[in-house]
Amino acid sequence: MSPQPIEYDDASSDVRAIYDEIKQARGINDVNNFWKYLANDPVTLRRTWHSLKEIMEPGALDSLTKELIYIAVSATNNCAYCIRSHTASASSKGMTDAMFGELMSVVGMANETNKLVHGYQIPIDSV
Amino acid sequence: MSPQPIEYDDASSDVRAIYDEIKQARGINDVNNFWKYLANDPVTLRRTWHSLKEIMEPGALDSLTKELIYIAVSATNNCAYCIRSHTASASSKGMTDAMFGELMSVVGMANETNKLVHGYQIPIDSV
Amino acid sequence: MSPQPIEYDDASSDVRAIYDEIKQARGINDVNNFWKYLANDPVTLRRTWHSLKEIMEPGALDSLTKELIYIAVSATNNCAYCIRSHTASASSKGMTDAMFGELMSVVGMANETNKLVHGYQIPIDSV
Amino acid sequence: MSPQPIEYDDASSDVRAIYDEIKQARGINDVNNFWKYLANDPVTLRRTWHSLKEIMEPGALDSLTKELIYIAVSATNNCAYCIRSHTASASSKGMTDAMFGELMSVVGMANETNKLVHGYQIPIDSV
Amino acid sequence: MSPQPIEYDDASSDVRAIYDEIKQARGINDVNNFWKYLANDPVTLRRTWHSLKEIMEPGALDSLTKELIYIAVSATNNCAYCIRSHTASASSKGMTDAMFGELMSVVGMANETNKLVHGYQIPIDSV
Amino acid sequence: MSPQPIEYDDASSDVRAIYDEIKQARGINDVNNFWKYLANDPVTLRRTWHSLKEIMEPGALDSLTKELIYIAVSATNNCAYCIRSHTASASSKGMTDAMFGELMSVVGMANETNKLVHGYQIPIDSV
Repeated sequence: MSPQPIEYDDASSDVRAIYDEIKQARGINDVNNFWKYLANDPVTLRRTWHSLKEIMEPGALDSLTKELIYIAVSATNNCAYCIRSHTASASSKGMTDAMFGELMSVVGMANETNKLVHGYQIPIDSV
Repeated sequence: MSPQPIEYDDASSDVRAIYDEIKQARGINDVNNFWKYLANDPVTLRRTWHSLKEIMEPGALDSLTKELIYIAVSATNNCAYCIRSHTASASSKGMTDAMFGELMSVVGMANETNKLVHGYQIPIDSV
Repeated sequence: MSPQPIEYDDASSDVRAIYDEIKQARGINDVNNFWKYLANDPVTLRRTWHSLKEIMEPGALDSLTKELIYIAVSATNNCAYCIRSHTASASSKGMTDAMFGELMSVVGMANETNKLVHGYQIPIDSV
Repeated sequence: MSPQPIEYDDASSDVRAIYDEIKQARGINDVNNFWKYLANDPVTLRRTWHSLKEIMEPGALDSLTKELIYIAVSATNNCAYCIRSHTASASSKGMTDAMFGELMSVVGMANETNKLVHGYQIPIDSV
Repeated sequence: MSPQPIEYDDASSDVRAIYDEIKQARGINDVNNFWKYLANDPVTLRRTWHSLKEIMEPGALDSLTKELIYIAVSATNNCAYCIRSHTASASSKGMTDAMFGELMSVVGMANETNKLVHGYQIPIDSV
Repeated sequence: MSPQPIEYDDASSDVRAIYDEIKQARGINDVNNFWKYLANDPVTLRRTWHSLKEIMEPGALDSLTKELIYIAVSATNNCAYCIRSHTASASSKGMTDAMFGELMSVVGMANETNKLVHGYQIPIDSV
């Protein structure tokens, strides 16, 4: 049987503690499916949440830029769930339609030229 | 330790029999590295050779078209060895420089639009 | 919010002009979803259409061969929309069921051997 | 035989004209290998250069952000040449070591969670 | 038109013979969609079944370990059908929820570090 | 400029502390390149080491099985460095040549059938 989402009321105290952290950090009433599925493995749930929080907080790169990078990878990997959720996050952080359009154009072009480089077997430039 | 190539003189009789088949089918004096590495697992060597021979022989598609498709996949997957060897095969079957250039342009464009479709989450057209 | 398709009646004159070009070139009454989503970014819409038209017209490779290559890449990348639309195009250009079957067999085999080459770390043959 | 790079002195006038455009736009004395290999197909050379120029110029996203996105895709696709050349471009536009480190951490995390989503078959959240 | 599944009653005798082999080997009453679609190309149906049977039987690796590896590849490639069917197979061979959770955590981590290696361009250790 | 490896003698005390942890856990005299490159971003170095240690320790799956899964993903992603280092780890944990051969055959087959599923657009079995 495929993994099923674990709702707050059915969760162990360990899982609830992580759900509470996520809800507080994000100001939301319920965690989304990503966390409810990972909760099938509480160790992965905890590690992934703490890693994601550490990685996505603003630092040398601002939060919006990080979301754009996340979408770029997710579009390259064809992860519909990830594209959807990070597009929502990016929008909430200020991504406009024009920014999304340019993001997609760069993602498309990078994928195209990556494969041209492979196909033509282009060697790294000597400097 | 990484797998090492198995030369004809060091090969078991089972492996030699496959090497002989390959050499005869292709009119060559020695098999290339692909087969010498697969020979570490004689079952995989035999199955891969028989599968490849069955798949690549001319049928509804001619041999050159099959080689072009092989290169398209290999460029998408960044398999330098495969690009090199199937470019050689395609050339021997009549692929011109102009054909290779157009092949690459289609591969590049397909990779670009594949990712645009993912990023924009474009639903299949109702017909 | 996710991008929404832009219908002809709601489109800017720039977008309509591209839609008209596509409809005329292909002899169809309405453009498909791919173009309606790209229309969110008119610059990408225009560039992608002109690139695609230039790349897919018959040259050293005929149109059907180009469609087969497009499908090969799209199957490797798991782009359902692209597989569906280019399978339709290929069929309209003469792809038979037998040709599709052989196309798939080459795509499958190329993906298998690409990964065997990576896993065995097979070095390029000295020539 | 594999494609060979085409040097300025050996190039057709069409190719030279593109090389000149690139050199002028970038303030460099010689184009890099990417263009010298694409020059085997002058149509692709021209289209790729004009597309890249249009896509990478600052708009709703600034030039540095676009380079970061390019690197994110190239790392996901394992294009060493592209990573190298776009890392150089990004550095020249202000990418610091700290920014590169955070970029890599987001790329790594996105690739990890993309695959977790696939493996757990996580459905899109109802909103 | 897209390929359609071929039911037993509509199948040729060659296809029926393979269906019978699969049903007997697996102790099931009907083959699943994978085989019904491949049956559009009887040569591929036969080769794929015989290859899969040879590869997946217990040898140096037991059947469950082979199923785990199959899921790892399928999650990396985002093949929902394959994840679903091989998760079912693995469960029937003894995969527990805890094992699935650890499998996913390794798959996620491997995908993350693979991309970090690409992005940082880490050279192979001299030994 | 591309990232450079950071040797123990040139490392900050934070980085040295992680290097010391790795060396002690693995009983080695020096960490390998993976860690020396990640050390350019000490936060990623620390998080990646702690995550990897947590994930790869024996649990519901033993250490060797986890290494096999790691190799399966790395071969699918064409990460030569990762294949090499995890093949070495797996060998030290008991992977025989026969096991490696069967691992590769499953990886190859899974990649092939994943793409056949995409290409034929095979729907999930109703059950």
